[in-house]
Amino acid sequence: MKAVTFRGERDVRVEDKDKPEILEPTDAILRVTTSAICGTDLHFYKGQELGVVPGTTLGHEFVGVVDEVGAAVRNLRIGDRAVASMYTACGACQACSRQDYPNCPHWAMFGCGAAFGDLEGGQAEYVRVPLADMTLAPIPCSLTDEDVVLTTDILPTAYTAMVKSGVRQGDTVAVVGAGPVGQLAVMCARLFGASKVMAIDLVADRLKEAEALGAIPINAAEVDPADAVFDLTGNLGADVVVEAVGVQGSVDTCWAVAKKGGIVTMIGLLVEEAWPTSCGDNWLRQIQVRPVIGEPIKHRWDLFRLIEAKRLDPAGIISHTMPLDDAVEAYRMFDAREATKIILKP
Amino acid sequence: MKAVTFRGERDVRVEDKDKPEILEPTDAILRVTTSAICGTDLHFYKGQELGVVPGTTLGHEFVGVVDEVGAAVRNLRIGDRAVASMYTACGACQACSRQDYPNCPHWAMFGCGAAFGDLEGGQAEYVRVPLADMTLAPIPCSLTDEDVVLTTDILPTAYTAMVKSGVRQGDTVAVVGAGPVGQLAVMCARLFGASKVMAIDLVADRLKEAEALGAIPINAAEVDPADAVFDLTGNLGADVVVEAVGVQGSVDTCWAVAKKGGIVTMIGLLVEEAWPTSCGDNWLRQIQVRPVIGEPIKHRWDLFRLIEAKRLDPAGIISHTMPLDDAVEAYRMFDAREATKIILKP
Amino acid sequence: MKAVTFRGERDVRVEDKDKPEILEPTDAILRVTTSAICGTDLHFYKGQELGVVPGTTLGHEFVGVVDEVGAAVRNLRIGDRAVASMYTACGACQACSRQDYPNCPHWAMFGCGAAFGDLEGGQAEYVRVPLADMTLAPIPCSLTDEDVVLTTDILPTAYTAMVKSGVRQGDTVAVVGAGPVGQLAVMCARLFGASKVMAIDLVADRLKEAEALGAIPINAAEVDPADAVFDLTGNLGADVVVEAVGVQGSVDTCWAVAKKGGIVTMIGLLVEEAWPTSCGDNWLRQIQVRPVIGEPIKHRWDLFRLIEAKRLDPAGIISHTMPLDDAVEAYRMFDAREATKIILKP
Amino acid sequence: MKAVTFRGERDVRVEDKDKPEILEPTDAILRVTTSAICGTDLHFYKGQELGVVPGTTLGHEFVGVVDEVGAAVRNLRIGDRAVASMYTACGACQACSRQDYPNCPHWAMFGCGAAFGDLEGGQAEYVRVPLADMTLAPIPCSLTDEDVVLTTDILPTAYTAMVKSGVRQGDTVAVVGAGPVGQLAVMCARLFGASKVMAIDLVADRLKEAEALGAIPINAAEVDPADAVFDLTGNLGADVVVEAVGVQGSVDTCWAVAKKGGIVTMIGLLVEEAWPTSCGDNWLRQIQVRPVIGEPIKHRWDLFRLIEAKRLDPAGIISHTMPLDDAVEAYRMFDAREATKIILKP
Repeated sequence: MKAVTFRGERDVRVEDKDKPEILEPTDAILRVTTSAICGTDLHFYKGQELGVVPGTTLGHEFVGVVDEVGAAVRNLRIGDRAVASMYTACGACQACSRQDYPNCPHWAMFGCGAAFGDLEGGQAEYVRVPLADMTLAPIPCSLTDEDVVLTTDILPTAYTAMVKSGVRQGDTVAVVGAGPVGQLAVMCARLFGASKVMAIDLVADRLKEAEALGAIPINAAEVDPADAVFDLTGNLGADVVVEAVGVQGSVDTCWAVAKKGGIVTMIGLLVEEAWPTSCGDNWLRQIQVRPVIGEPIKHRWDLFRLIEAKRLDPAGIISHTMPLDDAVEAYRMFDAREATKIILKP
Repeated sequence: MKAVTFRGERDVRVEDKDKPEILEPTDAILRVTTSAICGTDLHFYKGQELGVVPGTTLGHEFVGVVDEVGAAVRNLRIGDRAVASMYTACGACQACSRQDYPNCPHWAMFGCGAAFGDLEGGQAEYVRVPLADMTLAPIPCSLTDEDVVLTTDILPTAYTAMVKSGVRQGDTVAVVGAGPVGQLAVMCARLFGASKVMAIDLVADRLKEAEALGAIPINAAEVDPADAVFDLTGNLGADVVVEAVGVQGSVDTCWAVAKKGGIVTMIGLLVEEAWPTSCGDNWLRQIQVRPVIGEPIKHRWDLFRLIEAKRLDPAGIISHTMPLDDAVEAYRMFDAREATKIILKP
Repeated sequence: MKAVTFRGERDVRVEDKDKPEILEPTDAILRVTTSAICGTDLHFYKGQELGVVPGTTLGHEFVGVVDEVGAAVRNLRIGDRAVASMYTACGACQACSRQDYPNCPHWAMFGCGAAFGDLEGGQAEYVRVPLADMTLAPIPCSLTDEDVVLTTDILPTAYTAMVKSGVRQGDTVAVVGAGPVGQLAVMCARLFGASKVMAIDLVADRLKEAEALGAIPINAAEVDPADAVFDLTGNLGADVVVEAVGVQGSVDTCWAVAKKGGIVTMIGLLVEEAWPTSCGDNWLRQIQVRPVIGEPIKHRWDLFRLIEAKRLDPAGIISHTMPLDDAVEAYRMFDAREATKIILKP
Repeated sequence: MKAVTFRGERDVRVEDKDKPEILEPTDAILRVTTSAICGTDLHFYKGQELGVVPGTTLGHEFVGVVDEVGAAVRNLRIGDRAVASMYTACGACQACSRQDYPNCPHWAMFGCGAAFGDLEGGQAEYVRVPLADMTLAPIPCSLTDEDVVLTTDILPTAYTAMVKSGVRQGDTVAVVGAGPVGQLAVMCARLFGASKVMAIDLVADRLKEAEALGAIPINAAEVDPADAVFDLTGNLGADVVVEAVGVQGSVDTCWAVAKKGGIVTMIGLLVEEAWPTSCGDNWLRQIQVRPVIGEPIKHRWDLFRLIEAKRLDPAGIISHTMPLDDAVEAYRMFDAREATKIILKP
């Protein structure tokens, strides 16, 4: 079968690999019909190996049809359409009983190498899915692949940010970064009843997209985002600020636009970035910091219902659909910010 | 000054009364610019006296301009535009510290007679407002009287119903009754991120209005509402059901459309209605019951922000604007269901 | 093997049955080391068959050692000590993703007959446990069978009542019924930070036990419980009332002692009991009604930690330990209220 | 009257000042019967002036008898015993409607100088209390001055830390610092149902006191606190960590003992302290940061009920009672850590 493999810095290839097989009775094999490229994939692409060995299949956002099931799979049958969670979890342990899936001992993320549980990814024709009953969800028949492919990762990530921030109806929300995750954060902030949602970015096109979703656009290339946010919030600052990029400049902006006593919620994958203020100064401003990892297993059923009811439209941010064979070009375009979100079709 | 007074069953009059005066240093006198007739006023109009003596000025939904302030009023100045809460509270006692205003010893409702604290109402040219700093809120300058007049009572009532129900994003919500409160409940259920909002009524015109607000209309004169709701919810029933009428038939419908383990939230003023099921049967169905009184003092600032941001549009349900002088006709029309919501202008 | 079987009204027997076998790869066979008799078992004993066919093994509260595991069992190994949940669930479906286990399509309760999923019970030497990873939890090595046997059902039931009531620190809590569940409700109300916990019963001995756990005893055979509760709460009534019996008199008492705007939480299994007030009167008193089913799968890990830390001591309410062979006498005693809680040892 | 005044670094004096007078109709004059010295007072004592001009009366923790009331005071009468909140708030504005009192425009803290609203303090024979209905609460007759004096500040501060951390029953809680606030944090963590509460300090005597309150003592002068906490929590780290000192070493310890995904709640007044880790590393560890200011107005009524019910015993941490005349010696002792908590009696 064909698979998109990591080979080194800015070197991905479409290679031929063996079709995966059932290894445990809780496994399923999924024939992939749609997958997507995520900002996290770009970390590897740009050379932050993090233990991904050459030859690993990439991709943790994928949808398909159940091709084979282990003897213990209960909720899925061959031929069912199903969408994955970006990571697996057992559902039964102490961590899972608190719905704290990332602390499950059976936690593993697709296509992210040894540090993340060493699972092959889903940018391929087939993928082995462990703990299939937990990891896969059947797709409501009224929904297309495009409707649900982002429920694997970035939509629940944006949604979890709202839940963890405790966004209340009437809150003002500033989203820093209008890339794919930022767009979905705007969508979710609206869903959670924010009064004003402000999107901050440097790219005019992305801001136009955010505006179409109901955000007030703030172009940080043209105005000071702090001035803009304080003007829009009666000089208070934003109740909730969502960091949706994962770079130093964006982290700095979060502290600049937050109100006294506000909440900064961090979605973007950070590694070595510095704090914008001292701990003491942060105390005086009483700002809460809440890092977030998305929770697809917990939220996807609610997301399905919301997508069915057209309260959320994640497919709207897909900018390109390309054949899996063109994955090399797709990675180049996504890295060059020539696309908001790219779908790959095997 | 002119005032709308209660004189007996289906007998209200526009009479001349003395302008009210400051009695305590925390009082203000409001020159009323807009008031509204509420379903609660119809209870008196229909003859449920509940201690309202003839001659009492009716009305607990009103907006105006501060005409006079007592020496201890801190947040309002003469000439400020202000909107009332339907009831007063001290803000400082044990109940108020838990934001449980209706249990405040200084609680009193305007224009509802001795049983409710014996305050004159606001369907008049002037009204005395006790505890003015708590009871009145300054109106943001971008908002009209019509924008805020329903924040006195029925909008926060619908909003409180969502808060008390703990409506979560993705929930299905059935609103039983598409009168003024039901319309606002539809609006609020959408704001709280409900997936499907279903409006149930017998009047086609009201259902059309609810549909325009995003609800799925269910005409109980034509279909069995339980069949319709179970069809729309994958045969589960509604997660949350809002009773927005206050009559037996509507209470019965609530239990018919709720899912196992669902929540029935009751806004409508009930007095002697019966339960649709036994207590034991309710236990077996695990249905929660949550009666609700609106909380304008707690929620109005959030409501202002939401109205400013056009997330809520309560003015949209106002069907008639009439001079205060025509109050007799206005009561007749409202009682006859010829109007959704009537505004009176002194 | 020996098993306690239902044979008819007030007719249970210790009979010889075949040892159960693994039927599905997610099954485990548990060698039972400790089981308990629950108030629910008495419903069958007293003749409310509810579909329990003669010959069914009773018992949903049990602890043991893993004797055999199916091929897909992941978290348990042969020889592990494990404690059951009274019911099974898949952990993976839409209901389970909201931790709403009783609505899982794979939900089934042990030893309760066809209406509850038709599983054999655990008052036996061996029991087959479906969905073993979810249904069984490994027992921390510092805890005895007695420490954990009540985490199967009645301890999480009492605990869930506190969670669902939203008991806040400082609340006053009235527990109506000081049987085994009521005792545990007292223990949990203390854990949740209640200021005053009041236990209401007719039996002096049970009240003495409740008092030892920190409750204020109220003997309804001697005083009017409403008078007593209002006296103890500054004439307000109880913030939260827990119904822990499941009979009409106790339901009536709940409404008599609740404060205006209070919460009545119902643990006791009700079937045909009547409401103490009309729906309208309940609205005027603004009392919330919250029926509760215990959630062992969700809460047991927290319970283990609390028992290890000696914050909860469920073993303290066990009054009798008897051999499984004496089950007939044990049922008679429990039915006659000669024992608070009886443990059976195979 | 006598008053304790700030005169400069390590220079406080007991001086004679004019008795304060009613300035606004919402004022009251309190005859102080008990006051306390707080760690915050030591900031000024040690020379961090923060705008406190020489001659200012210190003290924001005080209890007394109402001596005079303005015309608009509603809930208090002359002769009533009353306890203050460390700060005032109006109760009526946008911030107060969200119970966000520190953002109230009328917010002011007693005895902390111009930067905090320029109010004279309560370490004196009399003190003027603005917004008396909000700022003062009547003392339940069963409670002594000592019972309630710490509800002015440090008890609600510890309690608010639990509320803001969302401490759940079963959580493990590490309290860093076993001074007066830390002791109360231990007391509150127990009340909130923590399984293990661990107290970390360098002073053996303070740890002994914490142990008497139910904490597991960890002497950081003898063992590595991270080793100790991980040993006690199954190698997970603490669910919630409370910083209760306000110095660099204690902040560093918080991050060392927190679990992945844990919550660090900061009570100690910080000014220029550094973060123990980079922002990126904090993201990878998913640690939430929650700074806290105490909320006496919101929580004191619940605290009264809990003290009356003997669920909390703040008086137990008072180590010294001295006459107001000895305030100079009292400040020296408190600064030298020769006392846990000192009460001054005029």
